[in-house]
Amino acid sequence: MPTKLFIQDVAVRDGFQIESQFIPTEQKIHLINSLSHTGLAKIEVTSFSSPKAIPALADAEQVMRAIERVEGVEYAVLVPNLKGCERALACEVDEINLVMSASQSHSLANLRMTPDQSIKQFSEIAKLVGNSASINVSLSTAFGCPFDGDIPQEQVLTYIQKVTDLGIAKISLCDTTGVANPMQVERLIHAVVKRWPDLVITAHFHNTRGMGLANVMAALNAGVTHFDASLGGLGGCPFAPGASGNVCTEDMVHMLQAMGYDTGVNLTGLLSCAHELESILGRTLPGQVIKAGPSTRRYPMPTGDVQQRLSGVNLCEVNPTR
Amino acid sequence: MPTKLFIQDVAVRDGFQIESQFIPTEQKIHLINSLSHTGLAKIEVTSFSSPKAIPALADAEQVMRAIERVEGVEYAVLVPNLKGCERALACEVDEINLVMSASQSHSLANLRMTPDQSIKQFSEIAKLVGNSASINVSLSTAFGCPFDGDIPQEQVLTYIQKVTDLGIAKISLCDTTGVANPMQVERLIHAVVKRWPDLVITAHFHNTRGMGLANVMAALNAGVTHFDASLGGLGGCPFAPGASGNVCTEDMVHMLQAMGYDTGVNLTGLLSCAHELESILGRTLPGQVIKAGPSTRRYPMPTGDVQQRLSGVNLCEVNPTR
Repeated sequence: MPTKLFIQDVAVRDGFQIESQFIPTEQKIHLINSLSHTGLAKIEVTSFSSPKAIPALADAEQVMRAIERVEGVEYAVLVPNLKGCERALACEVDEINLVMSASQSHSLANLRMTPDQSIKQFSEIAKLVGNSASINVSLSTAFGCPFDGDIPQEQVLTYIQKVTDLGIAKISLCDTTGVANPMQVERLIHAVVKRWPDLVITAHFHNTRGMGLANVMAALNAGVTHFDASLGGLGGCPFAPGASGNVCTEDMVHMLQAMGYDTGVNLTGLLSCAHELESILGRTLPGQVIKAGPSTRRYPMPTGDVQQRLSGVNLCEVNPTR
Repeated sequence: MPTKLFIQDVAVRDGFQIESQFIPTEQKIHLINSLSHTGLAKIEVTSFSSPKAIPALADAEQVMRAIERVEGVEYAVLVPNLKGCERALACEVDEINLVMSASQSHSLANLRMTPDQSIKQFSEIAKLVGNSASINVSLSTAFGCPFDGDIPQEQVLTYIQKVTDLGIAKISLCDTTGVANPMQVERLIHAVVKRWPDLVITAHFHNTRGMGLANVMAALNAGVTHFDASLGGLGGCPFAPGASGNVCTEDMVHMLQAMGYDTGVNLTGLLSCAHELESILGRTLPGQVIKAGPSTRRYPMPTGDVQQRLSGVNLCEVNPTR
């Protein structure tokens, strides 16, 4: 069992980005500060995109400059291009997160460039970054593409090679639209670990088809120690309206801790952040533990009326819940 | 990899039982007949409980006698006592499902008897059943109890011993309130398989804290080939309002088939049953695949306006979905 797992929360970037309402800057800062004190290893704070393109994150500089920088927490930001990189470096971020796609079609649709054009851009960004921050590359559609379907494993490995050739040592394998299954996850990660034993691999899953935590288990079993997740399960997939988005951070931490893994995260603090997020957004989120409580939760024995109300019927001999 | 997995759907019993509205008998029969043609191995049709106690299933006889008995499908019913057993046998059911709890407190709260009293009752029922039907025992709270907390593994094994001593060869290990984690599942099932290699073990999980499919994977890895699940994820846990209940059948089948397992189930047919169920209940259910479509689903490449609408922003270089 790994002694320590590293969890990055992406809600305030990956989630807020697609919210229709602008979340006030002060609320973003407050939530990020709350998250910083839960013991998370990393927080994806914002995206240095064009404010015209993503008005929801137009306050990237204000947020990045105002948040408390808690020791031991890495503050990462998404950077889509050289201009964004300059803005991010001016804010002294810890990590620059670059995004490319393993699928030609998804790359064109989402980034309007080919994967090889992304690699070329990364090369320029890497030169600009130098030693000012670390760089992580998120490889979208690593487990399948909504347009191209299956992505051959060899194609994924080819792009990882091109990324590592740039001297980049951290890669997130992203299941962009929630199509990965546990067997596939284990197979791909085994192949990556075998070929690049020193690469820092982050598993980034979506729960679009309910397989999120099953895939986390598969990645864990294959040796992954770094995981992305999103507070409350915030975020989504534009191709699956109504379905869940990112794996829920508190549900993932809850499962990992129940098995004895050291995530470093205070679950109670994290659940309190999830409540803060629900209150900011004014709606409930897909997370389950926030509704059910942790598995260690104990209830008083039901009696008479309570017992009846619990199930709406007399439980005696007739309504076995199993 | 096992060549064949066996899936039982429990929605029309486990789910309908706690619905506040009475589902018309004709609609129950129609849905069960639809399910019968999907390739499911078993359907838990109803419960022969007192109609006063569970009015929702007061039509047990009518339903059991009117449904089509499709070859290759087992029709199981829940039986809470000797009287229910007589009624079930009169309807020529294939399987009698008995419920007991591995926890003293849950047993008293849910069944108003101790586990040992349940065993004594099972002994009488087993004599009455003889060779007229097969018997399965569902062991509730096998992974933890909402009142007593952890249930020692040895306590679970003791009750399994007492059940097998009655000549009963099929046991469901039930995570009644969704507290099991994958490591615990693998550990318990390994112990049971080791001690009773011929026992037919069914894994019955709830998704209350999001771990449902992760636990299915753990049970599968430990050698389990029989699984319970509920269409649409219908059903619930009275102790976790708002949280998901049983593992969703179509989500589970979708995952298992994506990995190449032979469930015998036609996923398209099953999704059509889930739509039928949502239409009967007039609400959406927790199932994810019904919302997102199977992982093989392909989309046309977005263009211009479509691309903008998908995310609400210009995707170019600025809104990487990963």
